[in-house]
Amino acid sequence: MREEGLAAIVVMNHDDYRYLFGQDRSQPRAILPAEGPPELIAFSAEEPELRAAFPDGEVRVFASVGGQIHDVVDRLRALVARQPASPDGGRPKVGMQLWFETPAFLVDLFRRVNPEVDLVSSDPVMDPVRAVKDPGEIALMREAQRIAGLGMDRARELLRPGVRARDVATEALYVMQRAGAEGTSTPVYVNVGPDTCMLHGRQSPAPLEAGHLVIVDLTPRVDGYCANLARTFVLGKPDEGQAALLDAYAGIVATVPGALRPGVTVAELDRLAREVCARHGLERYQVQGLGHGIGLRFEERPAPTIIPQHRSVPLAEGMTVTIGHPVLAVPGVGGARFEDVYRVTAAGGELLAPHPIDPVI
Amino acid sequence: MREEGLAAIVVMNHDDYRYLFGQDRSQPRAILPAEGPPELIAFSAEEPELRAAFPDGEVRVFASVGGQIHDVVDRLRALVARQPASPDGGRPKVGMQLWFETPAFLVDLFRRVNPEVDLVSSDPVMDPVRAVKDPGEIALMREAQRIAGLGMDRARELLRPGVRARDVATEALYVMQRAGAEGTSTPVYVNVGPDTCMLHGRQSPAPLEAGHLVIVDLTPRVDGYCANLARTFVLGKPDEGQAALLDAYAGIVATVPGALRPGVTVAELDRLAREVCARHGLERYQVQGLGHGIGLRFEERPAPTIIPQHRSVPLAEGMTVTIGHPVLAVPGVGGARFEDVYRVTAAGGELLAPHPIDPVI
Repeated sequence: MREEGLAAIVVMNHDDYRYLFGQDRSQPRAILPAEGPPELIAFSAEEPELRAAFPDGEVRVFASVGGQIHDVVDRLRALVARQPASPDGGRPKVGMQLWFETPAFLVDLFRRVNPEVDLVSSDPVMDPVRAVKDPGEIALMREAQRIAGLGMDRARELLRPGVRARDVATEALYVMQRAGAEGTSTPVYVNVGPDTCMLHGRQSPAPLEAGHLVIVDLTPRVDGYCANLARTFVLGKPDEGQAALLDAYAGIVATVPGALRPGVTVAELDRLAREVCARHGLERYQVQGLGHGIGLRFEERPAPTIIPQHRSVPLAEGMTVTIGHPVLAVPGVGGARFEDVYRVTAAGGELLAPHPIDPVI
Repeated sequence: MREEGLAAIVVMNHDDYRYLFGQDRSQPRAILPAEGPPELIAFSAEEPELRAAFPDGEVRVFASVGGQIHDVVDRLRALVARQPASPDGGRPKVGMQLWFETPAFLVDLFRRVNPEVDLVSSDPVMDPVRAVKDPGEIALMREAQRIAGLGMDRARELLRPGVRARDVATEALYVMQRAGAEGTSTPVYVNVGPDTCMLHGRQSPAPLEAGHLVIVDLTPRVDGYCANLARTFVLGKPDEGQAALLDAYAGIVATVPGALRPGVTVAELDRLAREVCARHGLERYQVQGLGHGIGLRFEERPAPTIIPQHRSVPLAEGMTVTIGHPVLAVPGVGGARFEDVYRVTAAGGELLAPHPIDPVI
């Protein structure tokens, strides 16, 4: 935080809160000053529990209900005043996660009530801390990925002509929640026919038909940790175009994970995938950004299909990434993808939980 | 839009897209110029379907994938250039929904690539258009509320000592999805014991015990339209404190909805609720903001527990609002709430779908 010139980081998101404090709450709110203990912001009803959870006195609890915003503004002013003048003469900076789950209106409100500070992304501080997963985190991610596999088995079992995508999604979610998933990072995607051409298509309302391609994408969470498992199925014998697609993607996930070693970038993985696509004559349909970081956030750095510059982020040992994010789609034929989560190791990507690739139903 | 000085509104959210175009897609993107037809922004794979859905030629489709942001920037520049100079001499303005589901990072990105325009909330234009629901909208909201009732019946059936809140939530969600809910606006809240004191407590991991208060809050959606049904239960005979809480809230929802007439404000509803609380000696525990607007957004204007100024918004005939949003919580006893959705009419609030208040299990 000192290197980035941050007087404080304001935590408003479940993933940061869970990472820092080892628990979750419905409205996660905390201030991390550049110096000194973190300060949890709680409603009065939460105070006894928070004091019991953090008895060492390193945590201060704000207990006012109506004055919460007022308290936060006062604390930030005090922290900013304490901060040494910025070496570049700029305004004081406060960090906050500015990503998918941070509502734009909260950020605008924060800027209005704190006009004297620059609100910047906390990613440069938090990303390096969180990128490499410890064994406890890996265990939770394995469990989440295993549960995704149970959902996928249930979906595969149900996929047949006449069934509706929505009903398959309902049953897959039910199986995953009964197995311990606390929810999913995204809707349960069951994309059918032409909708397989979109990265995250709608849940097609029409019943499945023989010959349809179907992509199922499952994202259960366990104790906040995310899974991501996508499989493509075809109802009946694939035609020539479908077979080429499925073979090409199977080739990608058989080849590329071996290169998931420290130092590799997504751009390099994309080049390897491109070679496989070329062998099937499909290279012009390839979409860049073969994988993304995953952990307490569903898409962590690198997230190259959201931020193209992330294609050149070197991966490190112990990071967790997906392979198989972009759909390989041929207009008039359909799309395919097989996505799994891997841990980066010196020996290449270690699959967190194996799941078969068995597309023909 | 002319009155607000907007050159265009950029649509990035499902609720606006569904309202304006009568359908949904996984990445809803459109530009509404102050003059001229709306412009849908689609990926190439979506183009045939969009052209079929809007064959009257009033819709232009951008088909480039990589150049999507570039296209939007170019179009906005052209629209802004066409705009007459602002009467107050200010910079040109573009509207966008800036609410819970608009990611902060997209807004920041938009501001970086469009430095010459002020991005402002589109609410002043969209809220008045959407506040009053037409009969088709009311029918969908009734259906969503009916489905919430099915989930509540299932939850009530399962609530007993030894059961875990999470398992109750899983079963309630499953019943609602099987009945046609496409998902929920919030997690399924099943808050137990001390967690009932929080507006949206966590899903307590410990099993239920005799004597526990339990709040179940269900928010299924049907074709994008939101429901909101909350009930409080007690496992066994309520003690004196619990009985006072439950009686007070039952009194609120028996009394206040009669006042849901055109022109009334949430502040006035709060005053009526306060009188009921006072009769039970609980007025100091009352939280302001008895209800909120609901429709394609889960919390629409007025949303007084988020934006306190909304307490003075006058309601209009045909608006849909909840009554029963804030928890009435007494430390050491627990919290209670009964929340339903009503349509504002000249004769008072019309309950969209009745559901019993029957708290003692």
